[in-house]
Amino acid sequence: MHRIRLTVAYDGTDYCGWQVQPNGISVQKTLQNAIEDLVREPVALTGASRTDSGVHALGQVAVFDTDREIPPAKYAMALNQRLPGDIVVQKSEEVAQDFHPRYTNVRKTYEYRILGRRMPLPAERRYSWFVPAALDFDAMARAARLFEGEHDFRSFCSQKTDVRSTVRTIYRSELVRDGEIILYRVSGSGFLYNMVRILTGMLVMVGRGRRNAADIMKALEDPRPQAAAPVAPACGLTLVSVEYPDEEKNNKESEPKNN
Amino acid sequence: MHRIRLTVAYDGTDYCGWQVQPNGISVQKTLQNAIEDLVREPVALTGASRTDSGVHALGQVAVFDTDREIPPAKYAMALNQRLPGDIVVQKSEEVAQDFHPRYTNVRKTYEYRILGRRMPLPAERRYSWFVPAALDFDAMARAARLFEGEHDFRSFCSQKTDVRSTVRTIYRSELVRDGEIILYRVSGSGFLYNMVRILTGMLVMVGRGRRNAADIMKALEDPRPQAAAPVAPACGLTLVSVEYPDEEKNNKESEPKNN
Repeated sequence: MHRIRLTVAYDGTDYCGWQVQPNGISVQKTLQNAIEDLVREPVALTGASRTDSGVHALGQVAVFDTDREIPPAKYAMALNQRLPGDIVVQKSEEVAQDFHPRYTNVRKTYEYRILGRRMPLPAERRYSWFVPAALDFDAMARAARLFEGEHDFRSFCSQKTDVRSTVRTIYRSELVRDGEIILYRVSGSGFLYNMVRILTGMLVMVGRGRRNAADIMKALEDPRPQAAAPVAPACGLTLVSVEYPDEEKNNKESEPKNN
Repeated sequence: MHRIRLTVAYDGTDYCGWQVQPNGISVQKTLQNAIEDLVREPVALTGASRTDSGVHALGQVAVFDTDREIPPAKYAMALNQRLPGDIVVQKSEEVAQDFHPRYTNVRKTYEYRILGRRMPLPAERRYSWFVPAALDFDAMARAARLFEGEHDFRSFCSQKTDVRSTVRTIYRSELVRDGEIILYRVSGSGFLYNMVRILTGMLVMVGRGRRNAADIMKALEDPRPQAAAPVAPACGLTLVSVEYPDEEKNNKESEPKNN
C-alpha cells in the first residue's frame, strides 16, 4: 500500500467547492474520478482544506492510498492528462502511511486579491473582488497587522461555524501592492468558517473609512457571535499553500524550478 | 453630431476577435449592440486595432457618432450596464469630428505573457502561453532589443499580410519578469498581421536555445516571405494601449486614478 500526496492548483470558478456536494461538480470528485481512471480501483481522497464554492487554490494538498506500483512522481503528469484545464496537479510524491493532510499542526497561507479601481478589469473578474471606491491602503495595511498573534476570532467567522474553540493563531497578516491589485496575505495555524473572507471584508471597511483600528481591537477583545464585517466574495480568495512543519525544508528543496 | 471615443478592455477568450465575422460573436458587434440599445439609433463603430480571436485588450480605442445629447463621460457606466463582464468600457469622451482611431501616426503597445514552468497554472490558462521548458531569460531579453528601430519585418508576419510595405518602426521591445510570468512589452507605430505573436515565437525559440541573435539579425536584414518563427498562441496577447501623439499628454492627465 502506498500513500500518495498531491499538491493541486485549481480555478474554483466553475466548481461547488472542494468537497463533494449533492448538487454541483466538486474539485474533489473531479480529481477522484481522474485518479480512479488511472489506478483502476476505487480511492478515497482527503483534502487539507475544504475550500468553498468559487475559491481557488495554488497548493491544496490531497492524499489517497493505492496498491498500484506507479512511480509516485509520475502521478502528476498522468492525472493532468485526465483533468480539465482548471485543475492541475503540480506535484505528486509518496508519503508515510501515517501522514494525514489535516494535521492540527499545519501552516496554511491564503491570498485575497482586491481590485480597488473605478472600472472593473475583465481579466480580473474571476480572481479578485472589484471595489469601485477609493481605498486607504496605508490604513488597511496597518489594520491587517492587528490580526497577527493568538486571538479569539469568534467575531470573524460565519455563524455556521461549529467548532469547540474559536481561538486561532495568525502568524502573518499583511497587505502588499501587486500592480493595480491590493493583495492580502495571511498565514495561520487554521482558519474558521469564512474567516479569511471576513478579515478581508473588515480591511475593505477600514480602507473605505467605515471602520478603524479601534473597531478591530474591540472585536478581538470582546468576541461576539455575529460577524464584525461583511464576507468578501469567494472569487478573490486563493489557498496558496499548506505546510507541514516537520518536512517544510524537504518540500522546498524538492520543488521543481526551471526559470 | 457628437463623435464619442471609448477606451475598452476585454477578455477575448470567448470572442472571434474584434471584427464582425460570419460565424462567432465579435467584440465589436457586442459593443455596437450595447451602444444601439443605449442611443436607440443605428451606429457604426470603428476600432483602432482589429485584434484576432482570443486576443485581449486593456486599451482598445473605438469611435462612433451620435446625435444623442448624453454627457460623453456617462457612456462608460451606461454601456457597462448593458455589456457582459468580459467587455468593460474604461472611459468615454467626446473627440473632434475629424478624429479617426486608425491614424497612421499612433503608438500601439502590446504585452505578451509567457509562463515558463514545469506545470501549468489554472488561473493563467486564458492569459498566457504555457511553455513547459527551461527558458534562458537573459538571452531572450537581449534578443528582444534587436527588434527596436525601423526594420523590414516581412520575416515576422503571416503570409496573409496584404500591405504595401512591411517596414515598421518599433519604439520599445523589452522583456521583464512579473512573478512567474515572462512579460514581453512591445510598442510601435503599427504591426503587421500576427507580428507580435511571431516576434514572441522567435523569443521563445531563443529562450530554448534553438535560435540566436544572429538568426534574428539575418531575418531582419534579409526579409523572406515565410515567417522566421512559429506564431505564439493568441491567449497570451493583450493590446495594452493606443496612443495618439498630439493628445497623449491630455489622456494621461484625465485618466481616472483612485488608489
